[in-house]
Amino acid sequence: MVYCHPRGDSFNAALRDAVVDGLGKAGHAVDLVDLYAEGFRPALDAEERARYHAEGENLAGVERHVALLRAAEALVLVYPTWWYGMPAMLKGWFDRVWVPGVAFRLGPGAIEPLLTNIRRLAVVTTYGSPSWLLWLIGRPDRKLLGRGLRRLCARGCTLDWLSLTRMDQRPQAALEAFRSRVAAHFSSWVR
Amino acid sequence: MVYCHPRGDSFNAALRDAVVDGLGKAGHAVDLVDLYAEGFRPALDAEERARYHAEGENLAGVERHVALLRAAEALVLVYPTWWYGMPAMLKGWFDRVWVPGVAFRLGPGAIEPLLTNIRRLAVVTTYGSPSWLLWLIGRPDRKLLGRGLRRLCARGCTLDWLSLTRMDQRPQAALEAFRSRVAAHFSSWVR
Repeated sequence: MVYCHPRGDSFNAALRDAVVDGLGKAGHAVDLVDLYAEGFRPALDAEERARYHAEGENLAGVERHVALLRAAEALVLVYPTWWYGMPAMLKGWFDRVWVPGVAFRLGPGAIEPLLTNIRRLAVVTTYGSPSWLLWLIGRPDRKLLGRGLRRLCARGCTLDWLSLTRMDQRPQAALEAFRSRVAAHFSSWVR
Repeated sequence: MVYCHPRGDSFNAALRDAVVDGLGKAGHAVDLVDLYAEGFRPALDAEERARYHAEGENLAGVERHVALLRAAEALVLVYPTWWYGMPAMLKGWFDRVWVPGVAFRLGPGAIEPLLTNIRRLAVVTTYGSPSWLLWLIGRPDRKLLGRGLRRLCARGCTLDWLSLTRMDQRPQAALEAFRSRVAAHFSSWVR
């Protein structure tokens, strides 16, 4: 589980806890990666870029993230949607951790998926925008996850998408209802 | 113009120069923002998040970026596409600079665009992926810019999209041809 929000008093922090509680009730062990809390550096730097395609060498600095990713049966992302997509912090986790030899390998012609250990993807996210606007824009975030990144996971890997739109305009009761729905959703995850 | 690549010896650096040269020939003044070179911090932090919706206060730390954005007639982005979108570094520029009171204002019901000074958007980017894959994924990057961010610019704002797919597999001559096309494209930009 990768959680990304700068504030501990945020609604996303409550959603993080709801996911952890739900998964715990279902008997799953959760490895929680809290990118802001650990001070993750999101920008792939010049030195990393130079060895990006060198399998093995490209793990330096992200070994723990790669080990957790390779050990996971599922990947759950919890984050606020900013500008129709992940915060820079979370995008940087993909840029730096999903490197060649970890997420994929460039073969002759086709791309070889390497995260075949991951059988479920889930996104829990909040939007300031209303849902009609997300449809109008074309939901680029969902396309990225559902079509782009899911290809690198197990065959038949599912994507659960739990989102709350117009979150800034909702009464507290609506936020609480969503939080409960998230907890219930993950407590029903069977292996 | 916002340029984002960690390496000075990259093809994207050559593209940056091609854009600057082209615009110069057309008689335009270019304000070049080089995010990696200036050590831009991409992750919106806890303190910034707390004052995100407070117009005026939310400019602290990004004043220069906001001033350049407000003074611009056009915005040109030059970056490598990673995971079907902008590098974290560039995403963070949007997260931290395109704040309420700068890019938009939340009104009763509708969102009010504030970057009406920007009459042209342009993207110059490179992909490792082939173009059929980008179509299959649904081109989330283009939807984000063309449908999402363009709404906040001037009415009728255009989007030019210059991209090179499968860049890692192309011969040097193909890269050079693209670079020339980019320079020629911007040298034809009239005011």
